[in-house]
Amino acid sequence: MATTRLPSAGFSITIRIAVPADASSIGRLTTSVGEAGAVVTALDVVDSDPTCVIVDLTCDTADASHADQVVIALRALDGVDVRKVSDRTFLLHLGGKIEVSPKVALRNRDELSRAYTPGVARVCQAIADNPADARRLTIKRNTVAVVSDGSAVLGLGNLGPAASLPVMEGKAALFKRFGGVDAWPVVLDTQDADEIVAIVKAIAPAYGGINLEDIAAPRCFEIEARLREALDIPVFHDDQHGTAICVLAALTNALRVVGKQLADVRVVVSGCGAAGTAIMKLLLRQGVGDIVAYDRKGALHRGQADLNPAWRWLAENTNRDGYSGDLPGALAGADVFIGVSAPNLLSGDDIATMAKDAIVFALANPDPEVDPREARQHAAVVATGRSDQPNQINNVLAFPGVFRGMLDAHAEEFTEEMAIAAAQAIADVVGEDKINPTVIVPSVFDVRVAPAVAAAVRAAAQNPTPPPAADPGPADLPEIAASASATP
Amino acid sequence: MATTRLPSAGFSITIRIAVPADASSIGRLTTSVGEAGAVVTALDVVDSDPTCVIVDLTCDTADASHADQVVIALRALDGVDVRKVSDRTFLLHLGGKIEVSPKVALRNRDELSRAYTPGVARVCQAIADNPADARRLTIKRNTVAVVSDGSAVLGLGNLGPAASLPVMEGKAALFKRFGGVDAWPVVLDTQDADEIVAIVKAIAPAYGGINLEDIAAPRCFEIEARLREALDIPVFHDDQHGTAICVLAALTNALRVVGKQLADVRVVVSGCGAAGTAIMKLLLRQGVGDIVAYDRKGALHRGQADLNPAWRWLAENTNRDGYSGDLPGALAGADVFIGVSAPNLLSGDDIATMAKDAIVFALANPDPEVDPREARQHAAVVATGRSDQPNQINNVLAFPGVFRGMLDAHAEEFTEEMAIAAAQAIADVVGEDKINPTVIVPSVFDVRVAPAVAAAVRAAAQNPTPPPAADPGPADLPEIAASASATP
Repeated sequence: MATTRLPSAGFSITIRIAVPADASSIGRLTTSVGEAGAVVTALDVVDSDPTCVIVDLTCDTADASHADQVVIALRALDGVDVRKVSDRTFLLHLGGKIEVSPKVALRNRDELSRAYTPGVARVCQAIADNPADARRLTIKRNTVAVVSDGSAVLGLGNLGPAASLPVMEGKAALFKRFGGVDAWPVVLDTQDADEIVAIVKAIAPAYGGINLEDIAAPRCFEIEARLREALDIPVFHDDQHGTAICVLAALTNALRVVGKQLADVRVVVSGCGAAGTAIMKLLLRQGVGDIVAYDRKGALHRGQADLNPAWRWLAENTNRDGYSGDLPGALAGADVFIGVSAPNLLSGDDIATMAKDAIVFALANPDPEVDPREARQHAAVVATGRSDQPNQINNVLAFPGVFRGMLDAHAEEFTEEMAIAAAQAIADVVGEDKINPTVIVPSVFDVRVAPAVAAAVRAAAQNPTPPPAADPGPADLPEIAASASATP
Repeated sequence: MATTRLPSAGFSITIRIAVPADASSIGRLTTSVGEAGAVVTALDVVDSDPTCVIVDLTCDTADASHADQVVIALRALDGVDVRKVSDRTFLLHLGGKIEVSPKVALRNRDELSRAYTPGVARVCQAIADNPADARRLTIKRNTVAVVSDGSAVLGLGNLGPAASLPVMEGKAALFKRFGGVDAWPVVLDTQDADEIVAIVKAIAPAYGGINLEDIAAPRCFEIEARLREALDIPVFHDDQHGTAICVLAALTNALRVVGKQLADVRVVVSGCGAAGTAIMKLLLRQGVGDIVAYDRKGALHRGQADLNPAWRWLAENTNRDGYSGDLPGALAGADVFIGVSAPNLLSGDDIATMAKDAIVFALANPDPEVDPREARQHAAVVATGRSDQPNQINNVLAFPGVFRGMLDAHAEEFTEEMAIAAAQAIADVVGEDKINPTVIVPSVFDVRVAPAVAAAVRAAAQNPTPPPAADPGPADLPEIAASASATP
């Protein structure tokens, strides 16, 4: 029942090969790669002489073992010498994916003395005199910490801080690319909640917001709650709130497609970790009809013992009828299935038992809870987390715009009102005339998304202020030096 | 006895002024600014009509109160309307001085799937399997944390973390500009040594080195020692080691100028904080003749009670003759004075009592221990920390190259051998044929300095390795994917 993996750029390799300089050699290479199931994306001649050609052949493969098979197939060809195999994903990661650059020129003494000593001393003194100026005169204005303890890295589990760094760097790159936000990875060599809270509190002065990432549940709930209490900058756990925003956006449009109301639908959720819990809280806040929530303990219901506080709260606020059967059984007659759990839990037959015009969000990555092609036989709308299927639900739709809006509003906390506003903004980017069962969310590359989300979040902020001009040039010099502007 | 401050770019202001559109108005403005002692550096017409001209007049002033005087002088002119006064140093700081930028393209789905999910998962797994790969596949390769608790910000004192941020941002900008190093400000809302040590240990996985900055003595010594013990990346306290390297470099060339040997000279040091202590340790390591060290308790000597451990060590390793008189008295017959303490402690007459061909480094900022113009009447070589005097001793000469070298060598610690090699490299950039009493150190803008320092540090590293090529293009693809390159 597992979804077949297709060749993708995430598993692209470049193979350096020497072949005889005859008319058919290079054709034999590309044929062989194609027969092995890979897709040739580039062929570059590196060197040649009258008898031999050296080429770099780049192809997408499905995964590491498929890449091996492609190389084996090439080595088996007569007269072909495979010299070196490089993995383009690893090549791209050499030396890291982000850098720190000066925004100020440092070409000569004058520039140095404004950006550093002696000029900088007055800026330091001004912030000491008026701490709120840090939001104006330092990186705090536009900078977010991407904090992880490496305890729940993607679907890979507890890999620790160093191995989580490529994800946090990628996240930082996306923050800048899609939201113009400067984000910095803070990966912590501790998984103790007290220590994590103490550290994030201590580093907070340099940041305008905190994005928690890939921290395992239920620890993530306690860390988030304590930081929200302690800090005067927004704390956002993307695995929770980013996912919940995107799911609410997608569900809003899916319900439009099938003509149902949120208050009337029964939702089955598989997975009560960070994402599932946040999704359910947001749906309850929005008045969903009912939810039945599943995790390793089965359907959460009021009668259960030994639940942690997060699951206890869910058991008390969902499952009106106290259902305690298995997951496929709960689907019978349900309007919506949302999976944020594990691969291949359900079959197409299970989906067939759902109500008419069923909605299925099978978001486990890389392999969904149900094969989306089977689900589409029986459900009206199907979405996944995969980029090779329609309706990809991807957090990139939310977090860059959410933080852009919070930074511009000088928000001191992230609120449910912001989450709802952000979800509405994402949903609305898909116009009434474009919406259909295969288009319920915009593309992650849709340039309208982040500005729309940012504007919605800014408006939802408690203390909305207009965003400052990006480049305060001499045409509109702000008045800053209090002493210098004193009147006689 | 205070040194008169001259107009500088660090105190540059821009004044928007409306004046009558007659032949003499603008001339009256510049004359007035000049008579007030400021220096006009730019005059830009913003708008005009037949009767009126609006200009932005930019000028260097000496300090904030001088800027006030300039504005008052302009307001006093007939027919002149001063509209707005802006401080160019503050303008430059708006929104912070550094940014985080992606080094990878994120234009389309293929690029996204290599830099982020799903491709990134393999890179995470590779680092989990082989933690040393973090130095190759993440920002750890080229990134340094600039850590401060804001307890000793420049000469301003204990301003706290937010107010120290402009200095740390400036430092990060200099790291990139002069050393190609990605540096990130870590300002901590705690001044507890235990907490600082715990936090820096926890954040260390993302960094290839730690630069401690503006942390008060003696706490800085304990923090540095404990971090050196705990971490497998170099820990460098710039106020100590950076200053000591630059002073040793300058003293090496100053001794060349006067034809003396380090082993023969007696040195008087004023200031036993971070900088003074590190300078003395390095000079002792290099076999200096003798040192008499001064701080608030007078001359440190063996008989004293109530010394903290750092001062106890100094008392036991300096002051061979047990001198306990005052600072001017200690100068009598001394060969070298090094001040890293407070302004205006000494007069020219005090310097006159020193040995023939005396060397005076008066490094207190912005006002030196002795007016350098008076010192030059009696000493052979005079240096300060000021940019408007000859022989500026500036840490920018050392730290970018030191970290460049340590990162390239994958150094696990900073050593005295590296400090000595770096000092020698800085001294040697000033060629034998260029050296003279007013040129004992290179300019901070001398492009030869950082590469020379980096090469010297790399050579001094315990485990020297050649620096990797900056851009591993397809012409020389490194072999990375172990699985993909497996032979059948």
